Amino acid sequence: MRAMRLSTLDEQTYVVVLDDGDEVVDGLTAWADEVGIRSARLTGIGGFRRVTLGFYDPSELDYRRIPVDEQTEVLALVGDFTMTEDGTRPQLHAHVVVGQADGAARGGHLLSGEVWPTLEVIVTQTPRHLRRRHDPHTGLALIDLSR
Amino acid sequence: MRAMRLSTLDEQTYVVVLDDGDEVVDGLTAWADEVGIRSARLTGIGGFRRVTLGFYDPSELDYRRIPVDEQTEVLALVGDFTMTEDGTRPQLHAHVVVGQADGAARGGHLLSGEVWPTLEVIVTQTPRHLRRRHDPHTGLALIDLSR
Amino acid sequence: MRAMRLSTLDEQTYVVVLDDGDEVVDGLTAWADEVGIRSARLTGIGGFRRVTLGFYDPSELDYRRIPVDEQTEVLALVGDFTMTEDGTRPQLHAHVVVGQADGAARGGHLLSGEVWPTLEVIVTQTPRHLRRRHDPHTGLALIDLSR
Repeated sequence: MRAMRLSTLDEQTYVVVLDDGDEVVDGLTAWADEVGIRSARLTGIGGFRRVTLGFYDPSELDYRRIPVDEQTEVLALVGDFTMTEDGTRPQLHAHVVVGQADGAARGGHLLSGEVWPTLEVIVTQTPRHLRRRHDPHTGLALIDLSR
Repeated sequence: MRAMRLSTLDEQTYVVVLDDGDEVVDGLTAWADEVGIRSARLTGIGGFRRVTLGFYDPSELDYRRIPVDEQTEVLALVGDFTMTEDGTRPQLHAHVVVGQADGAARGGHLLSGEVWPTLEVIVTQTPRHLRRRHDPHTGLALIDLSR
Repeated sequence: MRAMRLSTLDEQTYVVVLDDGDEVVDGLTAWADEVGIRSARLTGIGGFRRVTLGFYDPSELDYRRIPVDEQTEVLALVGDFTMTEDGTRPQLHAHVVVGQADGAARGGHLLSGEVWPTLEVIVTQTPRHLRRRHDPHTGLALIDLSR
């Protein structure tokens, strides 16, 4: 376990509202890139017309795709932006819990999602930049606090 | 997609603890009104004796009510306060994931919930006021960033 | 319902990254104790190799243990640190929603969890110290805002 203090003095908080038909991963990433966000945390609620969840399979070291092709409530979108390994762009890492019409909850790594009717996201930018580095043991780009 | 920066300089954070028998939506809204909160974000955990979830049905443009008349763990309460369309009162928009006795998770839009044994909510007030406006396409009062 | 304002002026935010094999409750608590954190809120996402959820049974006034002995995505870890009743140590209170390989969501009070491949936690320390006190009616140590 490793930890790093992120000063709150220069933190900026944004509200981002996605509308009917917006794609959440591409949309949030493009917005963050445009605004110049490199490191941030976020939470959100709203709804998806359809969403593709991911489950990271330990035996494959890859995501299984779990499409949910129906309207769901976005119950908890939790995630962060960090820099890509080359330090050039913001990268979204978000997980999501969605609720189906009967109230059953499903969830996973957020691979993609199409918004309906709205998605309200609060993004808090942190001045300290976090970067990821490829980890050969897990096959993932993990947050690297050593730099 | 639209976004607005919310300065963090004048943000205030509150912890709100609801007790046995408190109703969550009315209780939090009355508290926010009394304190003068107009725009805020919140997260919480705790337990409900019973809760009514909502699923916003695209074909009805209305919420289906999903009563869960049993003790559940409140796993993730995520939401925000904004002003009502007329700008006079705070309005809670919250989604919730609850866990049943066997660990199954359910969730939806939070219509009402009765607390037991406790509900611990962190509310972060933002100085910039957010208002909602009725959207005829979805039938909902969506956050309006144009004002 | 009771509430207390927590100033944000001296808040500190930390990112804590847990790695393969780390135990989440002991790990986060030991880290908080070492850093001197007494009161904080946190959110996190990542994965567990196994996790034990708890459901607080109203008839027993005790937690039922719900072991989930399989890889899951950590979809939403939400919680807080407060001081133990004697004021000597930080105490973690966290709930978690996890996603199984088919996308089904489960959750409960977080009793223990073993991390794989990573767990990314954002901890925001609040300068005002919150303490718990044993409540005989519920059998739990609830946040006490009267001191």
